[in-house]
Order: sequence, then structure tokens, then C-alpha cells
Amino acid sequence: MADATIAELADRLRQVEDELAIIRLLASYGPAVDSGESQVAARMWTADGVYDVGGVACPAGHDQLAAMYDGEQHQSIIAGGAAHLTSTPIVHVDGDRATAIAHSFVFRREAEGYGVWRASANRWTLIRTRDGWRIQERLNRVLDGSPAARDVLRGGGGR
Amino acid sequence: MADATIAELADRLRQVEDELAIIRLLASYGPAVDSGESQVAARMWTADGVYDVGGVACPAGHDQLAAMYDGEQHQSIIAGGAAHLTSTPIVHVDGDRATAIAHSFVFRREAEGYGVWRASANRWTLIRTRDGWRIQERLNRVLDGSPAARDVLRGGGGR
Amino acid sequence: MADATIAELADRLRQVEDELAIIRLLASYGPAVDSGESQVAARMWTADGVYDVGGVACPAGHDQLAAMYDGEQHQSIIAGGAAHLTSTPIVHVDGDRATAIAHSFVFRREAEGYGVWRASANRWTLIRTRDGWRIQERLNRVLDGSPAARDVLRGGGGR
Repeated sequence: MADATIAELADRLRQVEDELAIIRLLASYGPAVDSGESQVAARMWTADGVYDVGGVACPAGHDQLAAMYDGEQHQSIIAGGAAHLTSTPIVHVDGDRATAIAHSFVFRREAEGYGVWRASANRWTLIRTRDGWRIQERLNRVLDGSPAARDVLRGGGGR
Repeated sequence: MADATIAELADRLRQVEDELAIIRLLASYGPAVDSGESQVAARMWTADGVYDVGGVACPAGHDQLAAMYDGEQHQSIIAGGAAHLTSTPIVHVDGDRATAIAHSFVFRREAEGYGVWRASANRWTLIRTRDGWRIQERLNRVLDGSPAARDVLRGGGGR
Repeated sequence: MADATIAELADRLRQVEDELAIIRLLASYGPAVDSGESQVAARMWTADGVYDVGGVACPAGHDQLAAMYDGEQHQSIIAGGAAHLTSTPIVHVDGDRATAIAHSFVFRREAEGYGVWRASANRWTLIRTRDGWRIQERLNRVLDGSPAARDVLRGGGGR
């Protein structure tokens, strides 16, 4: 009886730990890319993980991801003063797989204050690895009013 | 002795699960309304739940809430590209009732980048239902410097 | 055997509670300072806690902190309509000490909509007190592209 309850508590606790771990992982993206920690950012993905940034680029794997963050465009963005913000994700964990849905924003320093340069819809698929949760695919679409962008945000609520 | 500890752990775990569930519920608002899932957004409230949006409107119940999200104003906002952001809420759970306090923001696409169209103070009262936590009332006031708006944010800290 | 498992679960639960408590504490900052609860904001710090706001000011202790929030600059900001937003922090708890890394933003009401007045990098060191987690030091640097600001955000990921 007591053991059964312990097993049940352990399962529920694991669920909570998983959700918090994924929230923490996704929260670490902005600080990593804004500070220039390209390797840290790249290793949020699995070894063959994909970042599908609608038409702009689709780097896959740590080397391509790190190269994007080390590249001219990203480096010039952060050299000017930038903040990548991820909203609190809606996380659904199913065993060793999970999905997360959230908005992301890029703020860039201007002559006075900051401008909101980009606002996007995101859906992550994640898997549990020996090193913790990692991103298998991140789908990102600029919120331009198109159904394609809006659809990325569907299916997170009501569960 | 062991059972007592298990009961204590179960209580503490329930508290954590409740707080995370409410964070997840409120995080699901932006994706639901920006993608056009009006029914999903409406059903974040109880059947007689109220959304008090200071003077603008005060829809109560799923039909009125869904009608607001299906209505011309909201549809034109999301057709132009919009992001509703809710900050991490301060959640206080008391048995089957809870309160949450947070900011909310609406970003809208402009000719270049996005503008911050609205920034508001929010206070939610929530109740535990058979379907999980639901909103009984959401009080929303534009942050215009007035005491009425600022008071919505009081009382969340220091506990 | 069962007791050993209970102790292990209790440790893991404590870790989760600590992380959530720190997320909640940092989430309470914006509502406290935007509503004018200067004492509540000040008491997020320990009695000798420091807020190092790069060159601008470095208040230490509850009286200096509350005086800053009661002061002319902060009061004029909130009288005009303002929102202080803290992104989801990356929290690392180590016994009775913790660190957190996050972005923070200040939105201010303008003739039309809101402007992003300030975007910063933050690193908090926190300690567990009898009243819960409190801030020992908050290091805040405007994200202006300088290495000094960017370095504040390093070291949070990959753990």
C-alpha cells in the first residue's frame, strides 16, 4: 500500500521535473544566444536536431547550428544589443518525448530604446537523452498573420 | 511514520502540480487566441466565467467569450500578425481556489517590426474543476498610470 | 527500503519547490514595482542585499531599495504607465544558495502604444532564509552589445 503510493508519487514527481526541465531548457536559449555562447545554444538540440526557421535557414546538427550563431548576421545583431525572449512554453510530456509551444521575440537596441524586430510562433519536439531533454526539431514562423504561422501555435491548450 | 511522511509529500506535490498547472493554463492563452482557437480560449474559463476588460467589454460564459475571439476586432488583429504575451504569473493556491497576478502584452506587426499595442495588469481568480483549473474571473486593466490599473497588481509578493 | 525512497523523493521534491519558489519570487518583481509596493519590492532582497544597476545606482539594504522605488525617477515612470517584465529565469539551486539568469524589460506608455525603454541582462544570487528565498545580489546591465553586459548572461545553460 505504502509502496504503491510511493511509486505513484514518484511518477507524478517525474512528470513535474520533466516539465520544469523543459521550461528551464527553453529559458536558457535567450541568455545563450544573446551572450554569444554558440556551442551552448547548439547543444540544446540533439546531435541531428533541426531548427526550421521558415525559409531563412534550416540548420541541422550542432556544427550548423553553432555556425549560424557564430555567423555574421547573428553576431551583428548581438553586437548592437539584443534580447531573445521566449514566452512560458506550454509543455506536454509523453514518456521520453515532449512537445512545447510558445512565442519568441527578438528585441534590438535602437537610437532610443529597443524595437521589436521579430515575433514568432514556435513548436518544439523534444526527446529525453542521457544528458537531459534536448530539442529534436524547432519549428519557427514569423507571426505575419498567415495561417501557416498561426497553425504552429495550435493544439497546446485544453489539455 | 512512513505513511505520515507520504501524506505530507503528497500534499506538497499537489501544491507544486497545482501551481504548474495554472502557469501552463495561463501560458496557453496567447497561443490559443493568436492562432484563432476561439473555443479553446473560451474554455479556459468556467461556464459562467467573466473576462472584465475595463470598460471595453465584459463577456461572461463560453459563448460570449468565443464570440469575442471570433469577432471582427480580434480577427483583424490576428490577421495582421499579433502576439499575446503573458508574463510568468504569481500564483497562490488555497485548496480548490487560486489567484494569479501577471502582466499581459499585445504585440502587433507594423510596416517594420512589431509595436507594443497594449500592456495590462491582470488578476485571475481560478477554481479547481473536474477538467482541471479554470478561470472564474480575469480582471484586466491597461497600464495607463492610474491607481485603478496599478492596484490590480498589488498583493502578489511577500508571501 | 521504502523509507530510503521517501527520503529520495523528499529531496527531489524540495529541489522542485525551491526552483518554483525562486521563479515565483522573481515573477513578483514587476507587479510590486509597477504597482508602487516599494516595501514589498525591497524585501525581495536580504537585509543587506544589493541591486547593482551598472553605474546608475547601487542601493543596498531595504531602506535604500525602498527609497529608490519611492524616488522621483521610479514614481514618474509608473505614473506614466509602465510594465517591468522578467523573462523565465534559469535557476540553479545548490543547497541554501541559488543563482538565476534572465532578461528584464521596461515598457513605458507613449502617445500611441508602449515603447521598450530598457532591455537588460540580469544575474541574481539568492539565499534561503527563514522567510523563504531572498536576493543577496542582483546584477543588471543594459544590453548595449558590450561584452560586460553580455557576460552577465553566460553560464546558465548546458547543465
